[in-house]
Amino acid sequence: MFLQELKFDSTVQTYIKDITDVVNETIKKTKTNYGFAIVSSKHTTLGIIVSEIAEPNLLSDFIDHSLTNIHEDKRSTRVEKGYQYPTRDYKHRCQDNPFCNEIDEDYNAAAHIRYLALSHSSVMIPIRDGILELGKYQQVAIFEFDGRDGKGKNPIRKRTVQIWITPADTLTVL
Amino acid sequence: MFLQELKFDSTVQTYIKDITDVVNETIKKTKTNYGFAIVSSKHTTLGIIVSEIAEPNLLSDFIDHSLTNIHEDKRSTRVEKGYQYPTRDYKHRCQDNPFCNEIDEDYNAAAHIRYLALSHSSVMIPIRDGILELGKYQQVAIFEFDGRDGKGKNPIRKRTVQIWITPADTLTVL
Amino acid sequence: MFLQELKFDSTVQTYIKDITDVVNETIKKTKTNYGFAIVSSKHTTLGIIVSEIAEPNLLSDFIDHSLTNIHEDKRSTRVEKGYQYPTRDYKHRCQDNPFCNEIDEDYNAAAHIRYLALSHSSVMIPIRDGILELGKYQQVAIFEFDGRDGKGKNPIRKRTVQIWITPADTLTVL
Repeated sequence: MFLQELKFDSTVQTYIKDITDVVNETIKKTKTNYGFAIVSSKHTTLGIIVSEIAEPNLLSDFIDHSLTNIHEDKRSTRVEKGYQYPTRDYKHRCQDNPFCNEIDEDYNAAAHIRYLALSHSSVMIPIRDGILELGKYQQVAIFEFDGRDGKGKNPIRKRTVQIWITPADTLTVL
Repeated sequence: MFLQELKFDSTVQTYIKDITDVVNETIKKTKTNYGFAIVSSKHTTLGIIVSEIAEPNLLSDFIDHSLTNIHEDKRSTRVEKGYQYPTRDYKHRCQDNPFCNEIDEDYNAAAHIRYLALSHSSVMIPIRDGILELGKYQQVAIFEFDGRDGKGKNPIRKRTVQIWITPADTLTVL
Repeated sequence: MFLQELKFDSTVQTYIKDITDVVNETIKKTKTNYGFAIVSSKHTTLGIIVSEIAEPNLLSDFIDHSLTNIHEDKRSTRVEKGYQYPTRDYKHRCQDNPFCNEIDEDYNAAAHIRYLALSHSSVMIPIRDGILELGKYQQVAIFEFDGRDGKGKNPIRKRTVQIWITPADTLTVL
C-alpha cells in the first residue's frame, strides 16, 4: 500500500476544505486503477467528510450549524462580548491531558464534540479507473473545528492528514 | 474485488430501508467466504447506516429526531402551513453548485446536515463464512434525507448505492 | 486476515473506554507491520470512536452532551424523580423487534439515536511499523450508550467488539 501525508496550518477556527484533487493526484502517482483510498486525520478536532463541498453557502450552513447546535465553552478565548453563538459550561481543559507537553490553555470541548458529531477520523472511498469513484456532487474534504491563529497563548495549529492507497488486483462488475 | 450497483428511485423525503439481504446476495454471487463488504453512497443527502432496522417504530423515532433536531429550511417546498417540525434560515440553494446543470430549485441544506450528522458516505462490514458478520440486531440500511416525488419543479430522485466486496485469502481467529 | 473478539459486560448506562492497548496487542500477536485494523461493534447501541480519551473531563463532557442533546425516553426506567436531563416521547420498545426473544422491556430509542449521532459501527485505523498509526491525542474507544446493571427486569448487557487485522505486503511512502 501507499501513504502520502498532507501537512498544513489551520489558522481559522472552523472551516471546510476540499482535498479531492490532492487525493486523485496521489492515486495517479501510485498508478492504482482499482482499490480504495483511505483519508485519515491524525487529530481529534479535525475530521474528514465526504459531502457536497463546491457550493460555498452550503459550507457556511454546515459551519453555522456546528456552532449553533454544539455550544461553545463559556471560558473559550473565542467567546467575547458580541459572540453570536450559544455558550455553555464544559469541564475539559487541553492541558489536563496527560500527553500534553505544550502550551495549550484553551477550552475546546465543543470542538471535540463537533468532530464526533459531524465528521470521521477516516473515510474510505473506492478507486475506479484510476480516480476516486465519487458521485456528481461528492467531494472529500477536511472539516477543521479547532484552528488557532497564533495570536493568543496557543501556537498556530499544525495539521497532518494521511492518504492511504490500497490497490486491488482486478475489478469484476456484477 | 467486486462491485454491484443498486439503482432505485427515492420518492419519499426521509426514509430508511434495510438492504442487508441484497448485500448478502452479492456476497453469495462472488463466492467470498472472508473479507469485507463496503457499502457506499454516490450522493450527499443519502447515507448508509448499520443499525437496528427491523423495528418500524424505531425508524419512526430516527426520522422524527432528524426532522426535529435539524431544522428544515424555511424556504423549502416542504414547509407549508401546518408543517409540524421547526424551521430556520439557511443560505444554500441547490442551483448555486457549479456542477448543477439540471432543474433543482429546492432548498435542501437541512438534508445535507442530516446526512452528515446521522449517516456515513460508506460503511465497512466484515464477511465471515460467506455472510455479513452482523450482531443479532444489526442490519445495514440506506438513510435517505432528500427524496423527491416529482410533483413540484424537481424531478424524482434517482439514486445509486454501491456494494464493493474485497475477499481475503484466509481468516485466522485468535 | 485475523480476528480477535473482546467480550465484556456493560453495567453502566453510558461510558467510554479506551481499547487502544488491546488493539495494539492484537496487532503484535499477528506480527503485522503494515495494513489496517478494523474495530467493529456487534451492537446497535454501542459504537466505536477515535478521539481524545485520556482526559477524563472530556469524556464527561461527551457523555453530558449525549444525554443533554438527545433526550431520554420519558418511559425509560432511568427516568425517575430528580432525573437531571431532558426527556421526550418516543415510540420504540425493544420487545417489538421481531428478532427479540429475550426479556427486554426498556425504552432505549435515545440510546440508538446517540449511537447513530456520535459513534460508528466500525472504524478503520492504519497500521505502521507494527502499531496503530494514531496522532498524539488519538485513541480508539468503545462508546456504550445502553449498559444495564441487571437490577431491573433486564439482564446485564453482554457485549462483543471485534478487532480485524488486514495485513498489507509493503508500504511505500510517497
